[in-house]
Amino acid sequence: MKIDILSIFPEMFRGILSESILKKAIEKQIVDIEVTDFRQFAEGKHQVVDDYPYGGGAGMLLKAQPLFDAVESVKLPEKSPRVILMDPAGKPFNQKLAEEFAEEEQLIFICGHYEGYDERIREHLVTDEVSLGDYILTGGEIGAMAMTDSIVRLLPGALGNASSAVHDSFSSGLLEHPHYTRPAEFRGMKVPDVLLSGNHAEIEKWRQKESLRRTWMRRPDLLEAYSLSKEEAVWLEELKNETEKEES
Amino acid sequence: MKIDILSIFPEMFRGILSESILKKAIEKQIVDIEVTDFRQFAEGKHQVVDDYPYGGGAGMLLKAQPLFDAVESVKLPEKSPRVILMDPAGKPFNQKLAEEFAEEEQLIFICGHYEGYDERIREHLVTDEVSLGDYILTGGEIGAMAMTDSIVRLLPGALGNASSAVHDSFSSGLLEHPHYTRPAEFRGMKVPDVLLSGNHAEIEKWRQKESLRRTWMRRPDLLEAYSLSKEEAVWLEELKNETEKEES
Repeated sequence: MKIDILSIFPEMFRGILSESILKKAIEKQIVDIEVTDFRQFAEGKHQVVDDYPYGGGAGMLLKAQPLFDAVESVKLPEKSPRVILMDPAGKPFNQKLAEEFAEEEQLIFICGHYEGYDERIREHLVTDEVSLGDYILTGGEIGAMAMTDSIVRLLPGALGNASSAVHDSFSSGLLEHPHYTRPAEFRGMKVPDVLLSGNHAEIEKWRQKESLRRTWMRRPDLLEAYSLSKEEAVWLEELKNETEKEES
Repeated sequence: MKIDILSIFPEMFRGILSESILKKAIEKQIVDIEVTDFRQFAEGKHQVVDDYPYGGGAGMLLKAQPLFDAVESVKLPEKSPRVILMDPAGKPFNQKLAEEFAEEEQLIFICGHYEGYDERIREHLVTDEVSLGDYILTGGEIGAMAMTDSIVRLLPGALGNASSAVHDSFSSGLLEHPHYTRPAEFRGMKVPDVLLSGNHAEIEKWRQKESLRRTWMRRPDLLEAYSLSKEEAVWLEELKNETEKEES
């Protein structure tokens, strides 16, 4: 996969591309990530990328020309890449969209900074307007980093086995149970006895029960979509009774 | 405000702290951002930060000790900072939470990478478990960057006037109308005539109407919470009629 990031602040990406999963995926040639300063495509002596809005108003807008030319310059020949713009009014980025993007041959991220965009960029250049979440960022760069990270980790070979296991296990439909590691006591805080017992059947039961408890307390919406086993249904009743007692 | 980021990959932050809004806010002493490698707090010759889970299972867990000691080391004296952990099962990060965090004197972000956490970290050290969105990232670093960016831009003096105007204007309750800048024609794509007319009353009307159109087409949920003026109610009927004609 080829990922192109168009930004007038290419230095922002120096850190994340030289560390961790992205660095490894680039070294293993699973992905080729290029950050391009689109200012270099701006026509005119001063290479201006923004201008005032027609009709008046505050703020500057990114001009169409530098971005159209930058996209054409990085586009693989004969391909139709997804061209992605971060916008709070776009469709929400989620795991399903990450999986969809992970199937593409090329992704191009356009990062604005402070400014808005000339509408012709949205209408005729961009294929996907995407929102990272219900909050406002100063630019598209961090959004492009987040999407790149979550997409690249889905590419075959990008993650080792050990690393993929822990975080993805909430795809079971329930939240994860608590985990503990050594020491068994730290500043008076103890690991639950059952985890030190060596009794694997009991450990498994404790984990299932705690997973259910956490889901019920934090994300009851997930339980509605989940089909409980008979044992889990009994535990859930127990949890509810415990809580009622505590509250009364 | 003081923001401390605890990460075993401090180099990941090099790029974003040396560019743009964060760099300027640090220079203006609006915020002090420190990235601390918590590996340096790990006891033992090899400074190990993770260990196997009690009771067996895949993956490694971050140990309690290095993180408890790191938080104590960066904590301002006599204060109770918010200690924030990224977790897909946490409360969703949104603009309201950004505003809440922007009121604090100190924020401490704990960034895990691949691993899970010893439960004692969540129970006794962390004050807020926060999810950036419904997608999985390889670590907490990019999440800490996103939150830091969206919080710092809210601090008084961090943004200039011009830069704040464009992106925040959807706080009117409707999405923004399209914007255009020069040239009036680019590769055959034209700016709407009204914006070139110099008639400010007509321009304002066009903008309000397009704002309504975009909201109706993309985020009809926003319209439900919005109280339409008489004029807007008429326009909305017109939009609906236009669309019915196009569809038939």
